[in-house]
Amino acid sequence: MPTQQEQWFDERHGYAGSSIGFRVTQRLHAERTPFQSIEVWDTTDWGKLMVIDGCTMVTTRDNFFYHEMMAHPALFTHPRARRVVVIGGGDCGTLREVLKHDEVESAIQVEIDERVTRLAEQYFPELCESNNDPRAQLLFIDGIQWMAECEPETLDIVIVDSTDPIGPAEGLFNEAFYKSCLKALRNGGILVQQSESPLAHLPLLKNIRKAMKGAGFQAQRTLTFPQPCYPTGWWSATLARKGVDLEDFRERGAEMKQFPTCYYNAQIHKAALAMPEFLREALQA
Amino acid sequence: MPTQQEQWFDERHGYAGSSIGFRVTQRLHAERTPFQSIEVWDTTDWGKLMVIDGCTMVTTRDNFFYHEMMAHPALFTHPRARRVVVIGGGDCGTLREVLKHDEVESAIQVEIDERVTRLAEQYFPELCESNNDPRAQLLFIDGIQWMAECEPETLDIVIVDSTDPIGPAEGLFNEAFYKSCLKALRNGGILVQQSESPLAHLPLLKNIRKAMKGAGFQAQRTLTFPQPCYPTGWWSATLARKGVDLEDFRERGAEMKQFPTCYYNAQIHKAALAMPEFLREALQA
Repeated sequence: MPTQQEQWFDERHGYAGSSIGFRVTQRLHAERTPFQSIEVWDTTDWGKLMVIDGCTMVTTRDNFFYHEMMAHPALFTHPRARRVVVIGGGDCGTLREVLKHDEVESAIQVEIDERVTRLAEQYFPELCESNNDPRAQLLFIDGIQWMAECEPETLDIVIVDSTDPIGPAEGLFNEAFYKSCLKALRNGGILVQQSESPLAHLPLLKNIRKAMKGAGFQAQRTLTFPQPCYPTGWWSATLARKGVDLEDFRERGAEMKQFPTCYYNAQIHKAALAMPEFLREALQA
Repeated sequence: MPTQQEQWFDERHGYAGSSIGFRVTQRLHAERTPFQSIEVWDTTDWGKLMVIDGCTMVTTRDNFFYHEMMAHPALFTHPRARRVVVIGGGDCGTLREVLKHDEVESAIQVEIDERVTRLAEQYFPELCESNNDPRAQLLFIDGIQWMAECEPETLDIVIVDSTDPIGPAEGLFNEAFYKSCLKALRNGGILVQQSESPLAHLPLLKNIRKAMKGAGFQAQRTLTFPQPCYPTGWWSATLARKGVDLEDFRERGAEMKQFPTCYYNAQIHKAALAMPEFLREALQA
């Protein structure tokens, strides 16, 4: 039973009418950067908790779902991704997963707010363990501008690992940005966008897919996976591909993967592509 | 942004160190039965919310995940389930899903607390829409005793749709009860047990599987699925089978199903059987 001494951090998701919280012991850090407010809490059961503008971004205990599912499905779909860009992703967890793939020759993280990464280095060192990989490059600039100026047909995978489409990340969820991504990708290249909760944000998910199609991507697939710390505890990533379909993935490669994961494997890859009945109808997929 | 007028019902999961809540408008009902306390709330976005002993049991909006996954995977695994028993399940949502199957000739719900069903009839009428089906029988007695006295080899499926293993449901999670189920099932019969969150209740999930094996069931499979209103938003059901393995299901039957579902379909059935890497290791499955 909760006692009076217990302290909880509760995030109330106004649009969803639901909330998720964690039992915390102390606030380790709080600051306002030029872009957003960032807090780090210590919790009783979930390790460290990073909160941006009041929204839970990452906990030590459950970030593996999201980071693995943002990286591995795309990397095991592309035949050989040599150059990968992560837009956002300042906690470096997605970058770490990308760099588990030996075929990757260059992985660039373009995060607008350097403070997110510096705090991740301090409070989530395990997510930053590949930051010094010689293949990694960390840039702290505007991802929208970077992508608009990117040399055409030089990238194999673009992973948009952003906050919600409110505040600094708003410009990452529209057709103009996806057009920049399309131009920067080589043929067969894959765009991955975190696409929110299939239950609470279905209109947004539909808009993302519409914008990807509008930008000229040939194929789209939405994957679902658990993510306890995000609204409804159920999340999605949407893949779009340039000039090639998204029917198959390198299943044998995933089965034989030479690195550890906590959630992802070949079975889970296939499972994440299964469309719940209501989502199949809503997306006509 | 939350305003001062907003009212929230937050369930704090002490053992998990996390919480889930809903924005509520009013408490429609509260009572203490001989077995437990029951509340019904109206929410802004999730329809009605039933709370038993402080734990969220069901919301109008998201109960479809749980009820469909407690019923259809077992019914599409058994070649022809004629006699199905639901132990617990007083909100009648699992019973409704079971009765969508034409092959079912008799479905018996054995709920210890009649008040759960009477309140479901009042506040969740859609879950109770099959209660008057001539194949349905609603008993309000102790499920443990009923199962112990059940005629041997007369059942095809037993679904244990219970509250957490604390309080009245405690005796539903052990080898003695599973032995009663085994005896009551025909050869090839299937036991389904809601088996809590794979993330927050892994030791309990292991104990359930151990007890099923100890009771003499031949095969076990754990399925996972989203369930936003339950701790961590991610839930599981464990199937055990008498004398026959659990490798296959009637995939073609699921593809051709003649009734509507919101989450379940043949793809989702396969997906739910996929074992996340950490769970595969933990369960050695």
